[in-house]
Amino acid sequence: MDASEGRGAAGPAAEVSEAAAPPSEAPPIKPPADAPPRRGFSRRRLLGAGAVGIAGLGAAAAGGYVVSDARSGARSGGSDTAAAIPFRGTHQAGIVTPAQDRLHFVSFDVTTESRADLVDLLREWTKAAERMTAGEAAGALGAVDGPIEAPPQDTGEALGLPASQLTLTIGFGPSLFDRRFGLAAKRPAALVDLPAFPGDDLEAARSGGDIAIQACANDPQVAVHAVRNLARIGFGAVAVRWSQLGFGRTSSTSRGQATPRNLFGFKDGTANLKAEDASLLEQQLWAGAADGTPWMANGSYLVARRIRMHIETWDRTSLDEQQAIFGRFKGTGAPKTSADADSAEFDDFEFDTVTGASEPVIADNAHTRLAHPDFNQGARLLRRGYNFVDGSDGLGRLDAGLFFLAYQRDPRKQFIPIQQNLARVDAMNEYVKHVGSAVFACPPGLSRDGYWGDTLFA
Amino acid sequence: MDASEGRGAAGPAAEVSEAAAPPSEAPPIKPPADAPPRRGFSRRRLLGAGAVGIAGLGAAAAGGYVVSDARSGARSGGSDTAAAIPFRGTHQAGIVTPAQDRLHFVSFDVTTESRADLVDLLREWTKAAERMTAGEAAGALGAVDGPIEAPPQDTGEALGLPASQLTLTIGFGPSLFDRRFGLAAKRPAALVDLPAFPGDDLEAARSGGDIAIQACANDPQVAVHAVRNLARIGFGAVAVRWSQLGFGRTSSTSRGQATPRNLFGFKDGTANLKAEDASLLEQQLWAGAADGTPWMANGSYLVARRIRMHIETWDRTSLDEQQAIFGRFKGTGAPKTSADADSAEFDDFEFDTVTGASEPVIADNAHTRLAHPDFNQGARLLRRGYNFVDGSDGLGRLDAGLFFLAYQRDPRKQFIPIQQNLARVDAMNEYVKHVGSAVFACPPGLSRDGYWGDTLFA
Ligand code: HEM
Ligand code: HEM
Repeated sequence: MDASEGRGAAGPAAEVSEAAAPPSEAPPIKPPADAPPRRGFSRRRLLGAGAVGIAGLGAAAAGGYVVSDARSGARSGGSDTAAAIPFRGTHQAGIVTPAQDRLHFVSFDVTTESRADLVDLLREWTKAAERMTAGEAAGALGAVDGPIEAPPQDTGEALGLPASQLTLTIGFGPSLFDRRFGLAAKRPAALVDLPAFPGDDLEAARSGGDIAIQACANDPQVAVHAVRNLARIGFGAVAVRWSQLGFGRTSSTSRGQATPRNLFGFKDGTANLKAEDASLLEQQLWAGAADGTPWMANGSYLVARRIRMHIETWDRTSLDEQQAIFGRFKGTGAPKTSADADSAEFDDFEFDTVTGASEPVIADNAHTRLAHPDFNQGARLLRRGYNFVDGSDGLGRLDAGLFFLAYQRDPRKQFIPIQQNLARVDAMNEYVKHVGSAVFACPPGLSRDGYWGDTLFA
Repeated sequence: MDASEGRGAAGPAAEVSEAAAPPSEAPPIKPPADAPPRRGFSRRRLLGAGAVGIAGLGAAAAGGYVVSDARSGARSGGSDTAAAIPFRGTHQAGIVTPAQDRLHFVSFDVTTESRADLVDLLREWTKAAERMTAGEAAGALGAVDGPIEAPPQDTGEALGLPASQLTLTIGFGPSLFDRRFGLAAKRPAALVDLPAFPGDDLEAARSGGDIAIQACANDPQVAVHAVRNLARIGFGAVAVRWSQLGFGRTSSTSRGQATPRNLFGFKDGTANLKAEDASLLEQQLWAGAADGTPWMANGSYLVARRIRMHIETWDRTSLDEQQAIFGRFKGTGAPKTSADADSAEFDDFEFDTVTGASEPVIADNAHTRLAHPDFNQGARLLRRGYNFVDGSDGLGRLDAGLFFLAYQRDPRKQFIPIQQNLARVDAMNEYVKHVGSAVFACPPGLSRDGYWGDTLFA
């Protein structure tokens, strides 16, 4: 579709977006009266306005701007990959939003010491984020319509590209709650510093950070544009600590999505928490008002781990061994306790099944057994990771792996115990190394005139 | 579209592919009798063959494999982004092929000292490359259909993904023509070591290499899968020297494509050599039989430069200054000597036009003036670069820029003099730094049973 057709918050994008679903605990949020029109409004509308008239319907066509082939938004699987995802709602978008195909994740250090400057930045960021997720330029004047004596209000590389389901999700790291901004008393108990796990080989330069922003979109140029403009706006108040690009989401987060594959070649996301699991999400994903940190109610905690994969070693491992590690068939993704039939991907594990030799079919050190809720007091995660390849490592190998992202209600009960299980004996450990780590408290979604972090700074 | 519909070499994909066009100098190449069927054949056909029968038409549907939303192949702009591009032809695919959206470029060092082993590898690579560009697995048995005691013949992460217009293009670097393989006498005169240019700040670890492979596709997972499987097959004979991912092609190479934007926010590729410029391509792109290196006839020379952009500085520069640097309007891409109307992107420069103050409208140090054929004895390039963002640089900034790729008939007459012009005085230099550099001789396309490099090793 041509994104200039325009689409409302009530269109297909809204149907699939949890952020637009009727909020269960909070009062219903109406589209803010002063918000920009949410009609799949494309950046190109703002372009060349001097020449063709900004308000003219059909301006896009008259302007002769054409969205390039591969980006013009496939319409398949019932969702429109070019559309806009609503920015405000009970929960932040980008968590249960069906995982988009590309990621740019950035972690910032706050460099200003002024709480007021930080709050100003968060307000400014919110405006820009809302605009960009709607497919507009970062600033009202865009890339080419401001005074020519001034730097443009948008960097321009996404001119003409549709919203591409961009979501921007913010989180606050433990270090933000130190003495600088008077937030120490507000640090959530659940926002623990992660313990050291056996085998960790963390690089400080790829770990931690005061503020994280996760940008997901179906076009990498749109995700990169968003992070770059937020960094530009933040100049003088924040500095990029680390950033990570990812592609080919490795975990589906909605039952409408086919399960994608990670760089070990396995389907990843089969047993994930999904957008449709309403009551599980309340139990396991969203922080509750009674969890001890009122400002985090309807928020969620994010653990990020950069996990390097030794793909060269993996590629020399037999299919049998690979399947034993995950306890699943590589082709279909079905548990090894099902028959190898295509329909069986979503079958349940039967962990008690044994072989003729009385060995468990799903080995004691299989990744999925160790990570399964049955062996973790029911704990689950909403995984939302991405594959990465960041060039080569100087030793003749690709620097490739999984940028693991997992959302949850409380890392003390979810990520930490599961990872303690895995780090100890997971058969997969021979093929992976955790090289980066961070944890963030992601506040609730925004009310009609709220800004990022308002519940924390209020 | 569902890639399993199948499409012939005579279908739309072939129409847009130069590799399939009637060869002008060489005898017509018929589809090889023993080649796999070129029908948009998807990897998924090979999947679960044990269960559903490898040859069965409709096996894909029966297997229940679903291509994930964002990858299932937008059909727009008249080309099918999921289709297969023919691998054999007069010229290698991936040069004038309309630029795909994603890049994985890899440069290898040859580690074996045996010429025979190197030739064996090139033959093996050719088979795998032909299969993968057709949307199949790297090896005949694929990721899951071999014996379970052995490592799979394909790494599996592209199972279920369509061909995505994957092209694989090979080139040989100057260092391959040293003493190791007896190729010294075959080194083309045009394959010069690039001179040092003013301002160069090259890293050895991002420069040079014996063999390069450029993988372009509309899905990064498909491009990454191809490079990773070629590296796997090359284990013991080659090692990855460096690799670069890119997105959002920065230069259109066909008049059917809208001009995309680079990370400075400008349209990039407007005045590029295009697939449709048949006689210019003969003059400027393809090496001729009479050029002194018969094995390179119908080949081309590739210059790769990793160009870091100081985007933070750029983002603080006025629109006026930015437009002066490129001599073009940022919005429309039109030369600053045209009126700022949308239709004028492809207008010619009028370099003699002066302002009221008798200054040239296109400044003497404007990038486009310095790079224009009028000031370079008619020399042109086929630019085929990609944007990159590789995390951050440890100094609070994104490691972003342009991975510049340019094909040409003779770097001594094209890239080198143009870059000498630019490196000296280009107003853009304040905002960029060349940090990686390489040059490769890309042999002609493959005949019916040819292999990569056959004209060189024959
Ligand atoms: C490179 C690292 C990793 C790879 C390649 C990987 C791969 C996989 C695969 C292939 C599955 C089976 C399919 C599925 O249900 O999604 C799976 C399941 C799972 N993984 Fe991982 N994983 C990695 C790291 C982790 C980490 C660090 C955690 C958490 C600490 C984790 C938690 C889980 C959970 C909870 C499941 C679902 C288990 C179930 O309920 O069946 N994984 N993983
Ligand atoms: C970060 C580096 C660079 C950037 C951002 C850049 C950007 C641009 C832009 C925006 C244009 C105008 C639109 C177009 O015709 O494509 C252009 C034109 C051009 N550039 Fe570059 N460029 C870069 C490096 C280079 C290099 C290294 C060369 C070759 C040595 C080069 C050669 C050319 C040529 C030949 C043209 C066409 C000039 C004409 O005929 O009008 N560029 N470039």
